[in-house]
Amino acid sequence: MAAREAEMTDIQAPPFHAPVDDILFSLEHVARADRLRDWDGELAREVITHFASFAEERIAPLNASGDVEGCRLENGRVKMPEGFAQVYRELAEQGWHGISAPETHGGQNLNHAIVASVCEIFAGANHSLQMVAGLVPGAISTLVRFGTEEQQQRLIPPLVDGGWLATMALTEPGSGSDLSTIRMRATRDGDAWRIDGEKIFISGGDQDISEGILHLVLARTGSMEEGSRGLSLFACLSHLPNGERNSVSVTRIEEKLGLHASPTCQLAFDGARAELVGELGMGLKAMFALMNHARLDVALQGVAHAARGADLARRYAAERLQGRDRSGQPVTIDQHADVARMIKEADAWAVGGRALVHLTMVEGELTGGEALLSFMTPICKWLCTEGGIRGADLAIQVMGGYGYLREFGAEQNWRDARICAIYEGANGIHALTNATRSLKSDGGAGAAAFVALLRESGSELHEQAHRWEAEARRIASMSDPSAEAHDFMRLTATSAWLAVWARIKKVAEATENARYLKLAKRASTMSF
Amino acid sequence: MAAREAEMTDIQAPPFHAPVDDILFSLEHVARADRLRDWDGELAREVITHFASFAEERIAPLNASGDVEGCRLENGRVKMPEGFAQVYRELAEQGWHGISAPETHGGQNLNHAIVASVCEIFAGANHSLQMVAGLVPGAISTLVRFGTEEQQQRLIPPLVDGGWLATMALTEPGSGSDLSTIRMRATRDGDAWRIDGEKIFISGGDQDISEGILHLVLARTGSMEEGSRGLSLFACLSHLPNGERNSVSVTRIEEKLGLHASPTCQLAFDGARAELVGELGMGLKAMFALMNHARLDVALQGVAHAARGADLARRYAAERLQGRDRSGQPVTIDQHADVARMIKEADAWAVGGRALVHLTMVEGELTGGEALLSFMTPICKWLCTEGGIRGADLAIQVMGGYGYLREFGAEQNWRDARICAIYEGANGIHALTNATRSLKSDGGAGAAAFVALLRESGSELHEQAHRWEAEARRIASMSDPSAEAHDFMRLTATSAWLAVWARIKKVAEATENARYLKLAKRASTMSF
Repeated sequence: MAAREAEMTDIQAPPFHAPVDDILFSLEHVARADRLRDWDGELAREVITHFASFAEERIAPLNASGDVEGCRLENGRVKMPEGFAQVYRELAEQGWHGISAPETHGGQNLNHAIVASVCEIFAGANHSLQMVAGLVPGAISTLVRFGTEEQQQRLIPPLVDGGWLATMALTEPGSGSDLSTIRMRATRDGDAWRIDGEKIFISGGDQDISEGILHLVLARTGSMEEGSRGLSLFACLSHLPNGERNSVSVTRIEEKLGLHASPTCQLAFDGARAELVGELGMGLKAMFALMNHARLDVALQGVAHAARGADLARRYAAERLQGRDRSGQPVTIDQHADVARMIKEADAWAVGGRALVHLTMVEGELTGGEALLSFMTPICKWLCTEGGIRGADLAIQVMGGYGYLREFGAEQNWRDARICAIYEGANGIHALTNATRSLKSDGGAGAAAFVALLRESGSELHEQAHRWEAEARRIASMSDPSAEAHDFMRLTATSAWLAVWARIKKVAEATENARYLKLAKRASTMSF
Repeated sequence: MAAREAEMTDIQAPPFHAPVDDILFSLEHVARADRLRDWDGELAREVITHFASFAEERIAPLNASGDVEGCRLENGRVKMPEGFAQVYRELAEQGWHGISAPETHGGQNLNHAIVASVCEIFAGANHSLQMVAGLVPGAISTLVRFGTEEQQQRLIPPLVDGGWLATMALTEPGSGSDLSTIRMRATRDGDAWRIDGEKIFISGGDQDISEGILHLVLARTGSMEEGSRGLSLFACLSHLPNGERNSVSVTRIEEKLGLHASPTCQLAFDGARAELVGELGMGLKAMFALMNHARLDVALQGVAHAARGADLARRYAAERLQGRDRSGQPVTIDQHADVARMIKEADAWAVGGRALVHLTMVEGELTGGEALLSFMTPICKWLCTEGGIRGADLAIQVMGGYGYLREFGAEQNWRDARICAIYEGANGIHALTNATRSLKSDGGAGAAAFVALLRESGSELHEQAHRWEAEARRIASMSDPSAEAHDFMRLTATSAWLAVWARIKKVAEATENARYLKLAKRASTMSF
């Protein structure tokens, strides 16, 4: 037993390492964020490095313990695992909640790419806590875009200072992928509204780490027959102005495959006081703005899991002795070609996926970039969440039997990664969008921008761009392409993947980055 | 809440359904088991149908509860979950342990393909219990092949009547994929032997459902320098002839991703009495015989998980309403093309993988079939375990958020499936075998038989066979093909996959089996 324990102490789950250099390389050299007018490279480095230290030292150590302890529902209130409240307070004290908020509301108004990088590191350190805390930037931007000036002044500061967290309350038992059948009822009550009904799968629907919660709720102000046109967006606070609790209660928390420290709540709204955000009947539009924001963040959650998988695999394989080299000497398993391949593939999922998201964000912020941004968002969500699951899975495989054990961290990483392909629109829905709306909206402007992006990635992409265009034409001409949506997304994602790797390769050649050159070589053979 | 609960009651984890018709179709029509001299189709149907009922009614109901309760180590003994001991007794009473044993030792000497089908159903119903009970056929065949007549007479009957279960004790902390570094020491003690050392990852290393345990242990009788030539195989009983416990103790059980009802033990052998099985220094050879037996069973565990995934997905999707058809009517999600695709793919992993294993078993038993059997075994292990994981994963995706919840069964199916790609030789090891020993042993007889199998599968396979042969020549000429082993296995498995589907398609056309025809169409586009 002594031998085993000694060995396990040596190679046990290594602490979280935030991939700061990879992130900065991707932003600066691949996505070329310096093209953005408000870009401040030094500020980006400073913010990301600073958050990385906090994540490594304070957030990540709660990841495994939170998974084991999980959340509990006690007397109608959710108890978060030990230590989460303290770290949440520290996050608030250091001002991390307000980094995306406008300065007029006490925020720092940092560029989206910086905020997204903080989000990636947060998810890598502790996906569960990031789930609970991570909707604040999206809620703020929704309020900025759709709320009145008075609402912004009243609702944003408590989000910025950490007093409140935010939720996104869409799903109902019968309404998942199809939100047009939402039943939650909103009725006028003087100047205010009352909402009645039930929501499920609400991440952080309750917790004991923030004083209050701002629920952004999709509810029906019109008739069922109106479908999604009868839906409006509401802000519903956990507490009334007089300090009493609003009529929102947790009726259940789910037992899940992973994310045990993120309470997935079933919420009952029982005549809860709420206020309209934006226009009547425009709820789905407002919610989609929030969700589109969230989708690139989810893509980066996938990236975070792939990066964590690559890091776990690399560090384990560098310590674990097994087999011999040709001269008969014992070797660490990273010397075995197939193990090296698996580590490279996990790494490529992280590096390539991240570059794709960064490129999408930066191009999307440039003048006229909106069409490309909306075209690329479903691709990023699909590819990066798939890559997160694969990267996490490869780490399990590299670690063999130890990968299957709880204490080595690889299996939790996979369990937490798995949800990314399901939430914020199941990946099949994104594939359908890619085969339908993406090809046709704005007279095909998104598709045209995508082809341009492929072509600009290098002459080696011209043939792929041509093949994609031909297939896109065929798909666009179909009256119902849904049966081919998955395969078309595979082709689309493969094209995007090859394009981004062509770009990475070019930069890697110029900067003589041997690791990225090796990744680029392997990446070109990977299939999905 | 009422709506949710009603809905959940309607579509909650459906009970296990054993795929009897699919199994029989595969054995009879695809593998054409009637070519075997001792084949009795009616007996096969009777045995498989009978076991299926028992599995559905008695074994499967313990699958979810065993997962939640798990195993515990109390006072040095392993406690199995509630109900396992009772079902184990029933299995023994009905004679299921002895179905593979020779009649001279009280067994039924059933054909391997029937025993394997029982194994598949067992794994689908409850992988954990099958892990604990499932090594009996392998242990019996190892004793038949390597034990003395006296050993067989003494050791086989208690395995047949269920008094004992068997384990396979190979792995040590420093010896996983590379068994040549095993340290466990065997020393002579008069006519008997004593073994000292530690084994890890021993499934069913202790439990409280059988009276005794027969450990098949690989231990060192030679020097470390002799590597694997210094290893011998031992039978080590949990109890001495006088009824006292042998010096074998459980020092730890592992916390794992899945298989919570299968105790994965760390065992300390402290001068434990043991007896040699087979010749001195031939331990690895004997163990490989046991493992090769186990590898096709593991392939069928993968098939079982894919089949369970397909069944869960199909039944959920037939109940779950979401979205509308073109006339605006609500539809169940199996009407959505992409959901239908995912169900078909999970189903194809099961049907195609099973056919591959059955074909391998049947061809392997025909005169001169040994070369093909050993060539195909690593391919079956690689492809079917990969397919089991993918099929289980697809079920999670079809079920969306519900797939991520514990109570719907899809996530346990995945967690239990995941180990299959790791144990009995990690899949990378099988890929390496495929690129090295498989191409060269017996002067390339296995590879030649494989090409013949491809060609005989239909003229549409001729080009694929040609491509495979060219690549195999290139790989065989390399001094170290390890860096290409994975990609070569992908090509090899794809070729085998296309061949088996060409066969299934032919039979499906002849029998007008619409489901299999649809699966064959989708299967030809699936990549791995």
